[in-house]
Amino acid sequence: MKKYNPYENRPSHAGWRRDLYDIIFEADTPLGKAFDIALIVAILGSVVIVMLDSVESIATVHHDSLYMLEWDFTILFTIEYILRLICVRDKKRYATSFFGVIDLLAVLPTYLTIILPGGQYLLVIRILRLLRIFRVLKLVQYLSEADLLIRALQESQRKITLFLFTVLNLVVILGSVMYVVESSNPQFTSIPQSIFWAIVTITTVGYGDIIPTTFLGKTIASLVMIIGYSIIAIPTGIITQSIIRVSREDDKTKIVEQTKGNMFSKKCPGCAFQGHDLDAAYCKRCGERLEEE
Amino acid sequence: MKKYNPYENRPSHAGWRRDLYDIIFEADTPLGKAFDIALIVAILGSVVIVMLDSVESIATVHHDSLYMLEWDFTILFTIEYILRLICVRDKKRYATSFFGVIDLLAVLPTYLTIILPGGQYLLVIRILRLLRIFRVLKLVQYLSEADLLIRALQESQRKITLFLFTVLNLVVILGSVMYVVESSNPQFTSIPQSIFWAIVTITTVGYGDIIPTTFLGKTIASLVMIIGYSIIAIPTGIITQSIIRVSREDDKTKIVEQTKGNMFSKKCPGCAFQGHDLDAAYCKRCGERLEEE
Amino acid sequence: MKKYNPYENRPSHAGWRRDLYDIIFEADTPLGKAFDIALIVAILGSVVIVMLDSVESIATVHHDSLYMLEWDFTILFTIEYILRLICVRDKKRYATSFFGVIDLLAVLPTYLTIILPGGQYLLVIRILRLLRIFRVLKLVQYLSEADLLIRALQESQRKITLFLFTVLNLVVILGSVMYVVESSNPQFTSIPQSIFWAIVTITTVGYGDIIPTTFLGKTIASLVMIIGYSIIAIPTGIITQSIIRVSREDDKTKIVEQTKGNMFSKKCPGCAFQGHDLDAAYCKRCGERLEEE
Amino acid sequence: MKKYNPYENRPSHAGWRRDLYDIIFEADTPLGKAFDIALIVAILGSVVIVMLDSVESIATVHHDSLYMLEWDFTILFTIEYILRLICVRDKKRYATSFFGVIDLLAVLPTYLTIILPGGQYLLVIRILRLLRIFRVLKLVQYLSEADLLIRALQESQRKITLFLFTVLNLVVILGSVMYVVESSNPQFTSIPQSIFWAIVTITTVGYGDIIPTTFLGKTIASLVMIIGYSIIAIPTGIITQSIIRVSREDDKTKIVEQTKGNMFSKKCPGCAFQGHDLDAAYCKRCGERLEEE
Repeated sequence: MKKYNPYENRPSHAGWRRDLYDIIFEADTPLGKAFDIALIVAILGSVVIVMLDSVESIATVHHDSLYMLEWDFTILFTIEYILRLICVRDKKRYATSFFGVIDLLAVLPTYLTIILPGGQYLLVIRILRLLRIFRVLKLVQYLSEADLLIRALQESQRKITLFLFTVLNLVVILGSVMYVVESSNPQFTSIPQSIFWAIVTITTVGYGDIIPTTFLGKTIASLVMIIGYSIIAIPTGIITQSIIRVSREDDKTKIVEQTKGNMFSKKCPGCAFQGHDLDAAYCKRCGERLEEE
Repeated sequence: MKKYNPYENRPSHAGWRRDLYDIIFEADTPLGKAFDIALIVAILGSVVIVMLDSVESIATVHHDSLYMLEWDFTILFTIEYILRLICVRDKKRYATSFFGVIDLLAVLPTYLTIILPGGQYLLVIRILRLLRIFRVLKLVQYLSEADLLIRALQESQRKITLFLFTVLNLVVILGSVMYVVESSNPQFTSIPQSIFWAIVTITTVGYGDIIPTTFLGKTIASLVMIIGYSIIAIPTGIITQSIIRVSREDDKTKIVEQTKGNMFSKKCPGCAFQGHDLDAAYCKRCGERLEEE
Repeated sequence: MKKYNPYENRPSHAGWRRDLYDIIFEADTPLGKAFDIALIVAILGSVVIVMLDSVESIATVHHDSLYMLEWDFTILFTIEYILRLICVRDKKRYATSFFGVIDLLAVLPTYLTIILPGGQYLLVIRILRLLRIFRVLKLVQYLSEADLLIRALQESQRKITLFLFTVLNLVVILGSVMYVVESSNPQFTSIPQSIFWAIVTITTVGYGDIIPTTFLGKTIASLVMIIGYSIIAIPTGIITQSIIRVSREDDKTKIVEQTKGNMFSKKCPGCAFQGHDLDAAYCKRCGERLEEE
Repeated sequence: MKKYNPYENRPSHAGWRRDLYDIIFEADTPLGKAFDIALIVAILGSVVIVMLDSVESIATVHHDSLYMLEWDFTILFTIEYILRLICVRDKKRYATSFFGVIDLLAVLPTYLTIILPGGQYLLVIRILRLLRIFRVLKLVQYLSEADLLIRALQESQRKITLFLFTVLNLVVILGSVMYVVESSNPQFTSIPQSIFWAIVTITTVGYGDIIPTTFLGKTIASLVMIIGYSIIAIPTGIITQSIIRVSREDDKTKIVEQTKGNMFSKKCPGCAFQGHDLDAAYCKRCGERLEEE
């Protein structure tokens, strides 16, 4: 698997641009770490403001101060975006990368509300700022844990797709059957609505807004529930098996790397047996001294 | 396990029938692939129409155009069904096979609505067209993944049956007990209704339409919830174990097959036996020294 | 583990009693199998009658015929109970055994309703007849599967107890906290009620009858949901590990038993190496012929 | 891992203090066991009283007797707290330890209600007495089981954190999206409320108090449900893998310990090294022939 190389877009020559790059994009220097922490605080702060502004009781009282704080954060993030643009080697590549787009989306909506008067709902896009926390995370220790999980999910991706596809088919057919069976029930208004009920039931969410009333409907519903309750075991089994396998491969890789350094001393000159312990000095089969490397 | 052989019903002599067969039933040729994609699009399209027609607000406005589209798809699927019948070697075998029946059910309901005026609900059978997507899927790469999952499920089938049987007994007994305990509660109208409640609760679906009101009823309900919450671990454990075992068997089979092909070091010069251990120096059958690579 | 020995209570001398015993208690003879099937049909039939009688719309119309059928089954089961008593060696031991008590409970309630006029709810005890199906099951092939699952559950019993105890503590404390936090909410009437809410939430059942209304309450509820959603992984992990271990032990036992029969032929007379394949005729280390048993 | 040493705070010299310590803090002596059982009974009794007192129908009738019982327990626990303080070596260390604080919190609220008239809700803190049961548990056999589970959870802690962090992000973003999509629905009042809905849905709790009404809303809700239903497999896989690995390590440790004690066949007569493979004939350290048993 190709690893993400954070140094790819780093200025090649020393200078203030590279220093800036190291502060903004890296976390190895004290300044870089401080910048990351400040960024996380700013992101969480701005997201909380978006949330609070949506609560009517708060918005009616504090809207003006929230609005001003929002502009403060927008200006901060705009400066940050410009700095990022300045210090990377390949500007276009950064601007079109996943995090480049997220960085832009973090500031654009606020500016757009000036031009578009009705664009209130655009503001919710700002909640995507939250994704920027993953950028900071990318640099830290959690990377290797995520890597293992991602590999396990990739390995089981096809089995999971197959499972979800089967569930989707089940849900469409069972939903349609219930639409016919519960035709006397005003809650099952249409096939899409019945499919929604089937999803709510098979995933064991069970809102309770749509409930079968006929005996046959309840029997089918019971079947759907028991299916949903049982088949969750399948993706769990698939992913558990993947995680176990990937973890074991990782462990083996480590052992193989350790063994590689011990090759010579492990073949017995007397009986040609291989496969001694790493700390063996004599052959456990014939007692011949194992030659040192 | 006997594998499905898609060539069994293929015309034995070259000609337009075999060419047609390869297009309709296979996916190896460019035309065959194009046919499969067209078929999937047609299936999804016709299923969406059935769904839309069930939504009252859409049906009242667009019913006529939906009805015409439905006939277009029906005629298309009828032609397809006739073509399938023509090009297979054994007509009866195809017509009575699982997918043969599904293919017929995909077109029949629309024709029946002309004869039977009240047969509106027959139309829902058309949703079974969705199953035809699995026919296309059968040809592609997901087959081996499905095979592994099916084998794992078959292996754990008896344990799962035992589990479901125990859950069913639990649900009947707990439901009956609740009927007595909650006799003052008008929601627990009958034992079947109480069993429905027990299934809703033990599968953690929890619609909330039937809720115990007495202290004893709530205590038993808590017990049912905790049982349902915990015992899901059992089928999960069973299936996880099966998937791990089946995957490991597959890996071993691959290694054995690779080893078999590893001719020089593993084929005995004396008795030509293959399949020795990787560390074997002498043939375990005839004692001849195995030549080194 | 001590196995249940079904022959313990079998008459020691041949005769009609032992023949009867083999029919009623065993399933090895054709008559024994026929009896078991007839018994299952009778049990299911009588349970269905108990259920139907609880449905008001059915009971008002068919109560008399259901009542008569009920008496037919009761008399049948009474004859069966007497026959069981007659043919076992140790009458008292049977009468006080688990299935002996269940057999008695299957007939007693119907007789008691004659003596006790208000004992309607006693009738629900008859639903326990369902448990008698397990007696039949005990004899059949599912036994070994059940045995494996029971051993796995016994092995993980202490870990599961510990888990449930922790969940119980969590639920009591979180429920009490919610009682204080949601004191303004009339749905959280008391601590027991709040604990019921906590159980409904942590098991992800989610009836929706009791819902927090304050911000703090919703935050704690979110925490409870995420805890409940995540910690289910713990019993699942425990039981999966047990099932894997117990299955592996079973596999090893089989291999050891196979190997035991091959001891002599497996030790090389030349190099004294043991651990050859079961089909090996020559030592894979030194090429010496392995002596046959 | 450093183990908790219950003897650390035990008086070093024999005398009544050490005897008292052994009774109150240990469970090895008959008196110590009796004290533990009495303590558990008292804790459960006092917790039941707190619960009953919160039920209005009970409180109005029995409040006075419950109040008196509460004082009885409070005085008992106060005496116990003072005795604990007296018999430990390092008083301050006990008072500031986790269980020291819990012991104090078990008695303080009742006294505070005399001083603070409105401190009724303080009384709920008494429910924390329940945690004191864990102190007794700490001494018993369940310790090693808990130890294994805690180690497994610690091992998977980072992966679980990563998972929960991703779920949290998902829930915030999906909740915000739903707030915009369901802007016509009065149930989605604010972003925090929509996030609450997303948590209720993704954890498959499904209260049913907030339900999307638009087609797009229901589609997104279906997606959220299927995500929630599927991704539970990830923490389950992580924890299962950890439990399997930790259990296996424990088994290996046991085998190594057993092998170490297997002196005759495994101790090298030349270099006295222990810990050879079970099939070793020569010492892997010095090449000396290992004597047979």
